[in-house]
Amino acid sequence: MKTATAPLHLIPAGLGEAAWEIWLPPATREAALGLTHWVVENAKTTRAQLKALGHPGPMAEISITELPRQPKQEDLDRLLAPALAGIPLGLMSEAGCPAIADPGALLVRRAHERGVPVKPHVGPSSLLLALMASGLDGQRFAFHGYLPVKEPELLEALKRLEKDSARLSQTQVFIETPYRNARSFAAILAACRDGTRLALACGLTTADEWVMSRTVRDWKQTAPPPIEKVPTVFCLLG
Amino acid sequence: MKTATAPLHLIPAGLGEAAWEIWLPPATREAALGLTHWVVENAKTTRAQLKALGHPGPMAEISITELPRQPKQEDLDRLLAPALAGIPLGLMSEAGCPAIADPGALLVRRAHERGVPVKPHVGPSSLLLALMASGLDGQRFAFHGYLPVKEPELLEALKRLEKDSARLSQTQVFIETPYRNARSFAAILAACRDGTRLALACGLTTADEWVMSRTVRDWKQTAPPPIEKVPTVFCLLG
Repeated sequence: MKTATAPLHLIPAGLGEAAWEIWLPPATREAALGLTHWVVENAKTTRAQLKALGHPGPMAEISITELPRQPKQEDLDRLLAPALAGIPLGLMSEAGCPAIADPGALLVRRAHERGVPVKPHVGPSSLLLALMASGLDGQRFAFHGYLPVKEPELLEALKRLEKDSARLSQTQVFIETPYRNARSFAAILAACRDGTRLALACGLTTADEWVMSRTVRDWKQTAPPPIEKVPTVFCLLG
Repeated sequence: MKTATAPLHLIPAGLGEAAWEIWLPPATREAALGLTHWVVENAKTTRAQLKALGHPGPMAEISITELPRQPKQEDLDRLLAPALAGIPLGLMSEAGCPAIADPGALLVRRAHERGVPVKPHVGPSSLLLALMASGLDGQRFAFHGYLPVKEPELLEALKRLEKDSARLSQTQVFIETPYRNARSFAAILAACRDGTRLALACGLTTADEWVMSRTVRDWKQTAPPPIEKVPTVFCLLG
């Protein structure tokens, strides 16, 4: 008799210090606590997440395997082996929703190819929370990940995003390594037009959360916001 | 003494028939049940949602006002009046996360202008769940809302999205009115290249949920999927 294939559960991780009740539906928590096999971005993070969800058992009994940064097909097949053998498998990334613009997507794609059912679970996404709270009424939106690091390329990228935003009525969403946040904020004020709207969403779901949304003109007239070293999502509408 | 301004809570609504435990964190539910004043896309939907969350009291005691489709500034100020007077206010749309590519964004923008704190809550987003489960590993993604209705414009839009997708490594996400789903699926097979990947996510968070992801070539070789009249998110990577 052929063993039935078990699903690959996509389990979101928390965004920062906060009780799970704030950011996870009870059914997602239950699914996470029931899993014995995981593929994850960072094993230490996943152990901490499971503890925060109130996992009762010893962590040593849970199989947690880290996903290679550039997984080959044979890696993916090896990682999917439990699901193919009938054991439900979890996928978790470092923070927020897994398999969005990260290598986890390759595992999900391979799951589809191998006939493993894929089960997405509701959880926190800093991009989506930022977009909701930005008040930017683009009819469309685009997420760009990280912008270029070097100054001339960064300014050029910002000008292009602003132009596309105005042309397509598209809210532009991007993130930055926290220690570069203040520098990116300064670059936006330098590159963008006064009438362009910029929203900053900081420390989402944590006790220190705040969201501010105003025009570049208004941002120029206030003290720089306290975004250095705090996870921040930038939303821009030209 | 000046009354402190109360926050505008952005409360996601369910995507279909499913117990709240599947799609809402307990803290979001608690925040929703504690609100006495709401601005919403559809009052009937919000009353049904509050009942599904286990609201104890008579609905008649809750103030629920519908947001005009094209609200003017004076409408927005009138709707924000409770928050400005110190009464916490909720914003809910027809389904999923409020204020994303809908008129609710204008209320959020005005809240920022009037100094009303904006509090986004975690909840279900069909776009994000579809993207997670698609396995499409674009480093970026864009949401386009609805594509053109007329056939020639639709085919042209699909070809442009596919081209941009390949050029920018950007997963393209769009939706369709459910009774047009099958027609849009046929248009994608007609317009796109065989190697392009297409994921369909249907009935997300409900008992009938399924997600399929394969190449256009493989879609052409299988029976059409049962997407007619079911809310479906389309994800495409060229």
